[in-house]
Order: sequence, then structure tokens, then C-alpha cells
Amino acid sequence: MQTVMRVAGALRLQVVVRGAGSGLSGGVVAPPGGVVLSTERLGRILEICPEDEIAVVQAGVVTGDLDRAAGQYGLRYAPDPASADFSTVGGNVATNAGGLRCCKYGVTRESVLGLEVVLADGTLLTVGHRTIKGVTGLDLTGLFVGSEGTLGVVVSATVRLRPLPVDTRTMVVFADSLASVGTLVQAITRSRVQPSAVELLDESSLRSIDDNRGTDLARRGRAMLLLQTDGHGATAEMDELTQVVSAAGGAPHRLEGEEADRMVELRRSGRGSLKDTWRIGEDVAVPRSRLVEMLAAIGEIGARHDVEVGCVAHAGDGNLHVGLSAPMRPGEVAPPPRIHAAADMVVRTALDLGGTITGEHGVGALKRPWLVRELGHRQLELQRAVKQVFDPAGILAPDSFLASDGTRRRSR
Amino acid sequence: MQTVMRVAGALRLQVVVRGAGSGLSGGVVAPPGGVVLSTERLGRILEICPEDEIAVVQAGVVTGDLDRAAGQYGLRYAPDPASADFSTVGGNVATNAGGLRCCKYGVTRESVLGLEVVLADGTLLTVGHRTIKGVTGLDLTGLFVGSEGTLGVVVSATVRLRPLPVDTRTMVVFADSLASVGTLVQAITRSRVQPSAVELLDESSLRSIDDNRGTDLARRGRAMLLLQTDGHGATAEMDELTQVVSAAGGAPHRLEGEEADRMVELRRSGRGSLKDTWRIGEDVAVPRSRLVEMLAAIGEIGARHDVEVGCVAHAGDGNLHVGLSAPMRPGEVAPPPRIHAAADMVVRTALDLGGTITGEHGVGALKRPWLVRELGHRQLELQRAVKQVFDPAGILAPDSFLASDGTRRRSR
Repeated sequence: MQTVMRVAGALRLQVVVRGAGSGLSGGVVAPPGGVVLSTERLGRILEICPEDEIAVVQAGVVTGDLDRAAGQYGLRYAPDPASADFSTVGGNVATNAGGLRCCKYGVTRESVLGLEVVLADGTLLTVGHRTIKGVTGLDLTGLFVGSEGTLGVVVSATVRLRPLPVDTRTMVVFADSLASVGTLVQAITRSRVQPSAVELLDESSLRSIDDNRGTDLARRGRAMLLLQTDGHGATAEMDELTQVVSAAGGAPHRLEGEEADRMVELRRSGRGSLKDTWRIGEDVAVPRSRLVEMLAAIGEIGARHDVEVGCVAHAGDGNLHVGLSAPMRPGEVAPPPRIHAAADMVVRTALDLGGTITGEHGVGALKRPWLVRELGHRQLELQRAVKQVFDPAGILAPDSFLASDGTRRRSR
Repeated sequence: MQTVMRVAGALRLQVVVRGAGSGLSGGVVAPPGGVVLSTERLGRILEICPEDEIAVVQAGVVTGDLDRAAGQYGLRYAPDPASADFSTVGGNVATNAGGLRCCKYGVTRESVLGLEVVLADGTLLTVGHRTIKGVTGLDLTGLFVGSEGTLGVVVSATVRLRPLPVDTRTMVVFADSLASVGTLVQAITRSRVQPSAVELLDESSLRSIDDNRGTDLARRGRAMLLLQTDGHGATAEMDELTQVVSAAGGAPHRLEGEEADRMVELRRSGRGSLKDTWRIGEDVAVPRSRLVEMLAAIGEIGARHDVEVGCVAHAGDGNLHVGLSAPMRPGEVAPPPRIHAAADMVVRTALDLGGTITGEHGVGALKRPWLVRELGHRQLELQRAVKQVFDPAGILAPDSFLASDGTRRRSR
């Protein structure tokens, strides 16, 4: 890595870092004439220390593999993006990935204690600490997390592990409308329970799972909520959620054992098929109190633009993944403009509701058009100036969210 | 604030921001001929939104007041430095303050979603988001948290609130040596319980509480461990901890109601008296597996330098507050060199054990001598370059950890 960066620096070659290539925002597009630097062979878990409840892992380790390895010590790596079985720790660090459990345990940032990073000039820099707490100097660890390869190449991470919960409880609630599910989510937020997952699937997502997996979820309701609690209080918490859901007009259905595991697995695989379909996936977040409005707006946007919309949401965080799709017509070589127009409206609506253009997938190249609307010109200038500190020649991730033409190219 | 910064910028006056003035690292020393900018009148809680589980507060709000205000909605502000009753949210943000509960709920960083900051040129900058998750651009919010006033003046914060736990359980364990308490802490770490507090007080700290408060803690043991669990699983977790402590040779003593509250309050007030005494307080953290070694080393350092040492530790985080003291002799106008020598050894030992020079109090002016030992020259250069982006004229916190002479002045 250091040699590649030294050579690239000397030759002024542009470099894009690639983990598993499973990102959803176009963050790993090869620069013309440049280098795609893969972390695939940085695949070793260097250490698991149960006494310190930490692990030291190379960037190319698959996230789920780290989690399973920690499990042998009664521990787990909490961040669990739906891609955990193929995305890598390095990629998760680059995008500050979230996941199902992060409403209780925090996103990747909250589990990263320190990093080893190869800078644009080939220097190996160590930031952060092996201790749980530490406030020495500016938090460069946090700055690298979520920086999408713009500041350096993350080669290893020291991460926090947490005790495997002694118990996990699962519930599903089917509802006849998105609005009533939204009401349930708000009732759950107002309760004094912190679930470990609050997942929402709309009718289109349920149908898509049914089509792919032979289930009959869509017959049971037009939307589904999947709830989990974990830890020593899991049962007491789920009992309270059962009451809360019933009081709010929902019909709670508790799942046990394999049935529960299967439902979570179905959720993780809950993306639509791409066969003969144009599809854009958006990833926005809104304050939780605006979730119902956002869901309603998404439905209207789909209808207005003649685009099919499907929502899977980490509802406990107000984070929505919106799939926008349209059938592929003979001769079409690119998605029809109405899909882009609908996507644009989804992102603008999230901003109007006090939300953000990306909850956990990152800005990449795809979300650049909206970046300045969220950050403002001054903040974007400051971010670019910070990048210049780490990468004065601008060779890293040249097409990223910090690209100097980011606010103009593809502007809408 | 903006006007003051504009004027200061124009006149090149140096500016130090001051919250409650309760910091412990000398971060608020007035610059000669410069400005001390107080946030005292920024004292309003602007919003508490239970639906979003967030609050928006001005920087001068006292942390405990925010926590109590959130309590009216069944919520709380989790970060609880022992100073919570007089330190401010702005000061806590500046130092990334921890506290007792942060072993379960994370430090200040984990509760800050967004900030309003006045930059060195008087611009008002808004960073972060109102959503629980959000990954748009570099994490400047995290960069400001813990930056000790070097990058800008934090004027308000959007913070995350959490449900008030339905139950809290408390236990104390007295032991006849620091080593046996260390063993207990390691057994607790290896358990599958995440306590909400794991506090350790050594004999000297117990005596000091006894002297100040008329208690008889030091008669009961040479060290004390204070444990709390909270939430729906609090009782089950405390039952498990009771077993763990017993199995590791400790004698668990459960406390209820007022007795429990009083013990926590005694811990919070557990600093030594300053009467006729020279005293330096250190704040280091080590990986939890090295806690026993660190405690032993501190005892040896005290003996070798003829300095009285006292330890209060957030043991669940490996974070130790070490008080070093010596009697004030007639005619002495400064602490004797042996206290500084002992403090130096404490910090160096923490680094040698893989730890950090400050767990939660910040670097300020006092910890600058050791800064480069932890960060290395390259990282310190990068941090200074980042500061230059935000404060090109270097008017903010001129005597801070990023002072350009920081590695030379008072070097040891």
C-alpha cells in the first residue's frame, strides 16, 4: 500500500480505494488512467483481545467474519450493515456504515477506536487509541471514518467489541397502511424501550421478498414492522413493546428461534430484483417525528412520476432506503429521466423535512448533486481545505464528494 | 459572539473561550492582551423534542440542568461528568467529556448530532444533522467535539437524548487491596454484562471522602468498587454481576434507594481536599487488561517520589484519575519538583502500557509536554494544519495543545 501510494504520488496518478465493491453510492469508480487499489488481500484479523474487548483487523476483512470470530469469545462486532456477509471493515469505515443494530449500538464510528492509514504520500499514520476512551488531540480517527477514501487509505482498524446478548426477542407487526406503521414507530420511540432493531418494509418490498423467496408476506399486510430487543432485559422490553404496539392499534406477533432468524435474514436480503428493471436506490434519513410525512411523500412522488417505489427503513433511526424503479423498455440504454426526477424529489423532500441526503451509504459520486444543499458553500469549502491538508495533490478519490467540481457537475 | 470574533479577527486579538471554568487541564488560561470569551449567557435550552429524542441547547447550559429538563419527558442526557452540576454543555463538547455512565452510553461525542460554531472570522457555521444517523461529507461535528476551542466557538449543540432507565441497581464491593479490585474489574469485563458504571476508589480516595463527609468507608476496605446496571435488565444484570464478583473472591453488597444514591453522590464528590496541600490531578487511560499493572505502578511511583497518590477510576473504561499530593511546607510557593516528576512517570507509564495521556479531561496547556509522545510528529503536524484551515491567523486558544511551540515549551 505504501509503495503504491508513493509511486502514485510521484507520478500523480489518481487512486481510488476499493473494498468489496459493494458500495451503493458510486464511490469506487475507476479514475481514467488511474489506479484502483484493492484491500482484498488485507484479509487478516490480527488480534481479538477479550480482556480489552477490542479487535485489530485489516481493512479487507469481511464484517460478518469479524463478528463471527468475536462470537467465539462471547463478543460481537455491533455494526451490521445488511451487506455484512460481503462488505469489508475498510469499506464500512469509509462510509461510516450503519445497519440494523445501530439504533441501539451506534454506527461504525462508535465502534472504531483507532486506525492505521496510508496517506497520499505513502506515509503510514496511526491515529486513535487502544483504550475505550481517549481525547488526546483532534479526533482524526472520527475524521477518517466516513471520509470515503478522500483523506487516506485505511489499512487496519482497532475496533470495540461488545458482549453477545444473552437473549434476543423478535416481533413482527403487519399493518394495512404505511401511515399506521408510522404511528406504531412513533409510539415505540415514545416508549422507554431502546430496541436493537426497528425495521420497516413496505408493500413493494414485501412483494419483492415474496417473489424472490416464495414467502407470502404481502398477503399478511401492506407494511411490516420487524422489532428486536436484546440483552438481559430483552423479554421485559419486548413485553413492553407488545403493550405499546397493541395500545397503538397494532397486532403484535412474537417470533421464536428459527422463525425469528429467518425473518431477520429475509429483511437483510430485502432488495428488489433487477431483472428487466431500471432501478435507483436512495438512502435518506429524517428526524423520526417526520417519518410518516416522508413515507407519504414517497408514495406521492412515485405516483406523480409513474415510478414504482419501495421502502425499507431502519425506522428506529429515521433512515429510509427508497428503491425507485421502472420497467426496462426495448431499446432503452439508460434509466428514463422520470426515475431521476423522482429520486431528486425524494432527496429534496428529506432535506425539506430537516433530514439528510445520506443516512449510511455515503455520498460517493451519485449524491454529489445535493451535497451543497445540505452542507452549504462555506462548509464544503472547509471540507475541501481539510482534504488538501491530507492530500495536497488531490490524487485520492478524485471523483468523490469533495471533487472540486462537485457542486457544478450534474447539478440539477 | 460573531461580533466579538469579527473584531478580534480584525485586531488579531487572541481569544480563549470559557464555559464554567471548571476544566482540569488549563485549557482556559487568559492570553496576555487577549480576550476571554464567556459562554455564560448562552444559557437557554432552545428545544426538547421527545418525538425525535433530541435537544437543542446553547453552549452555556449546565449539563445537569439539561439532564434534569430531559427527565420531564422521560428522557435523559447520558454524558455525566462528575462536574455535571456546574460544567456546561459547551465545555463538555470542547473536551469530549466522559463521566460515570459513559462506559455504557458513550462519551459526549456519542451524544452530539450537530453544532453551531462561530469561526475565527465571525462566520456562523452549522455542522451535523438533526437525524440520528447521517454521513454527508466529512464529520466536522466530530472534529469540533474535543477540539478544546482551537477550531471555533461552539454556541449551540443538537444532542441525542435517551430513555430514562426504568430501573437502576447498585452494588459496592470492598476489598483489601487494589490488586484484588483489579481482578474483580477484569472478571466483570469478561462477563456478558455491560454495567452503566464501574467506579473504583482507592484507600486514599476513601479516606478523603471520610474526612470531608464523615463516612467510614476506609474502615471497610482498602479499595472500593461501585457498580451500577440500568434498564429493563438491571436486576438480572446485577444478579449476574453478584455471581461474578463472588466467584472472583469479592464480597458483593447491594444498595437500594437512598443508600445507593448517596454512594454515587459520594463518588462524584470524591476529590481530595486542597487545604495546605500541593496537588496535581492526572487523567490517563489504559487498555482495561492493563488496569492492575497501572494501579500497581502508580503505588510504586508514589512511594519512590515520596508523594501521596490517590486513584479514582472509571474502571469500566480503564480511565484513571490520579491525584498526586504533598504537604505544603512553610515558604513554598510552588509544588515541589518531586510531584511533577511523579506525574510525569504516571503519564509515561500509561503510554508504555498502550494507553493515552488523557481519557476525558483534555490536553489543555498542562498535558502539552507529552502530546507528541502519543501522537507522533507527523500527526501533530497534520492536526496543526487542520487548525490552520479553520483559524488561519491562529487567534483561537493560542496556548492550547496545538500551539506551535507545544512540543518544545516545558518539554521534559
